[in-house]
Amino acid sequence: MAADKEAFVDLFPRLVDEIIHGVEQEYPDYDKGAIAWFRRVLEYNCPGGKMNRGLSVLTTFRHLVAPREPTDQEIEQCNILGWCIEWLQAFFLVADDIMDGSVTRRGQPCWYKQENVGTVAINDSFLIEAAIYKLLKKHFKSTPVYVDLLELMLETTYQTELGQLLDLITAPEDQVVLDRFTIEKHTNIVKYKTAFYSFYLPVAMAMLLAGVKDEQAFANAKDILLEMGIFFQVQDDYLDCYGDPKVIGKIGTDIQDNKCGWLVIQALQRATPEQRKILEDNYARKDAACEARVKELYKELNLEKVYKDYEEQHYHKLMGMIDEKAGQLPKAIFTDFAAKIYKRQK
Amino acid sequence: MAADKEAFVDLFPRLVDEIIHGVEQEYPDYDKGAIAWFRRVLEYNCPGGKMNRGLSVLTTFRHLVAPREPTDQEIEQCNILGWCIEWLQAFFLVADDIMDGSVTRRGQPCWYKQENVGTVAINDSFLIEAAIYKLLKKHFKSTPVYVDLLELMLETTYQTELGQLLDLITAPEDQVVLDRFTIEKHTNIVKYKTAFYSFYLPVAMAMLLAGVKDEQAFANAKDILLEMGIFFQVQDDYLDCYGDPKVIGKIGTDIQDNKCGWLVIQALQRATPEQRKILEDNYARKDAACEARVKELYKELNLEKVYKDYEEQHYHKLMGMIDEKAGQLPKAIFTDFAAKIYKRQK
Repeated sequence: MAADKEAFVDLFPRLVDEIIHGVEQEYPDYDKGAIAWFRRVLEYNCPGGKMNRGLSVLTTFRHLVAPREPTDQEIEQCNILGWCIEWLQAFFLVADDIMDGSVTRRGQPCWYKQENVGTVAINDSFLIEAAIYKLLKKHFKSTPVYVDLLELMLETTYQTELGQLLDLITAPEDQVVLDRFTIEKHTNIVKYKTAFYSFYLPVAMAMLLAGVKDEQAFANAKDILLEMGIFFQVQDDYLDCYGDPKVIGKIGTDIQDNKCGWLVIQALQRATPEQRKILEDNYARKDAACEARVKELYKELNLEKVYKDYEEQHYHKLMGMIDEKAGQLPKAIFTDFAAKIYKRQK
Repeated sequence: MAADKEAFVDLFPRLVDEIIHGVEQEYPDYDKGAIAWFRRVLEYNCPGGKMNRGLSVLTTFRHLVAPREPTDQEIEQCNILGWCIEWLQAFFLVADDIMDGSVTRRGQPCWYKQENVGTVAINDSFLIEAAIYKLLKKHFKSTPVYVDLLELMLETTYQTELGQLLDLITAPEDQVVLDRFTIEKHTNIVKYKTAFYSFYLPVAMAMLLAGVKDEQAFANAKDILLEMGIFFQVQDDYLDCYGDPKVIGKIGTDIQDNKCGWLVIQALQRATPEQRKILEDNYARKDAACEARVKELYKELNLEKVYKDYEEQHYHKLMGMIDEKAGQLPKAIFTDFAAKIYKRQK
């Protein structure tokens, strides 16, 4: 697995060079300074994450073709698709950070906060997205799954954007309406905004590459993986508040940013009228003391325990789903994924 | 032609319904309030332009299949592709307006300036883009040109974003460096940011639909149409300053916004050291008096006449190119396009 990660990481600079040389060759008159900027956009924003999404294309593919080993070409193809997911995420994150007014990302300043960037970052995010389709065209046009990959990527992008829309209008930064925060809304946001691209996409890509054709297999994998994705985000919401900023690489801002997060929903479900008043008065204030008061209330409501119980329960539910729905697919695809997520610290 | 326009305009609400019903059917659990927002995004931002780009798919197609008439199905297909171009433009404009800090667009407030929108408009612009690929999938997946259309749309998006990047870094709002404004840079910006999607894209779409296969025909059409597109933007720069806001539907802001526009480049080429000082002191200031001083200088330099001469000259150059390069393609494709542009008031 360490070797897989190394190969994945090593591929990145080659893909960047490919994109940049592609512009130079296809558009020889295009401004050299702008090309240098584009390179910086890719290098600053695409690496630096945990790369679980990107790596899991190959991990899944290995399970699908076992007991044989993937060929070198298949490994490369999986890793290119893996980077397409990482780039898709980079496209979203660059834009999300602007929309959320975030300050740091992956332990460094957000791209739009860099000198001379600002709202130029909006167009930069577009370019990261567009580069994905250059990679797909170059490496998959000659394969029988090219159109399927294009459509999968486009549909996943759409789903994620629908999720981001719902997130943004449920919790605009300037209107604090805690009534809107329900567990149903949370699940809906998380499914569309995170679960499709983080969980279903890498597995579906590996399935396409491995030649899986059965639509029911895709549908079953989707059911399991979306369920896993929803849990993953609950955990992310938990870590935003209780994780160590040094470990998770960012300072949690969900409370100040009026996020419809899992913790505040649990708090609302358990709060006395007095405690609810505390939430009303302190949630989503751009103020450290208010944030601290909310965290204190979370402690009073013992939300850490509530979360731990949920995690335990959910793990068992998921294992049941895998047993029921994996069908012809190797169960290890899903259990491997789950093992990386449960009990994670970052 | 009036009937063509009517059919085109009438198609729009059907396409919006199709997109919205598509979400409702494919994602029945997705939040209804968010769907209503998405509908508003499409309805507010996609119509309201001159629709020359969208209409020209059918106009071009008519020339390509003459003397026979297009079938009803072909007309519909052309118009769907035409709306794909209009939606692509809407995606760019919603985002550009944020990046440029613009106030009005097509005679109404910019989308991001609407109440409760703000930076949510960034994600809204993504959704407009994503909807294009739903339209293409639904209406063209069963045709032999589906992949070509996808690739053409994706490549054109990439080209436009490269152009927008160059524009943004050449003239950031907060750094006035007039030395950067050269005619070479202007041509480069305009070619990538405007000419591909506004001029080459509609014609290339019509050619694909008409079954043109000869790559040289596409290359020649591109040469002619990019040249036309460059002229079009020069004219747009001219109208930003000299056009009637009531007619062009927006208040020109190029001078205040530090745009690398054709007029300021002409002024720089002709300015005495004293006049250059006036530009240095007044260009790109967020101040009506400074803007007026720049316009006064343009008058002293007789830029209206400079433009009119350029327009005349360029028209002849373009007609020469059409004679030389149209080849097997009907010349009327290009002359029709040119006729709509030259001498336009808006």
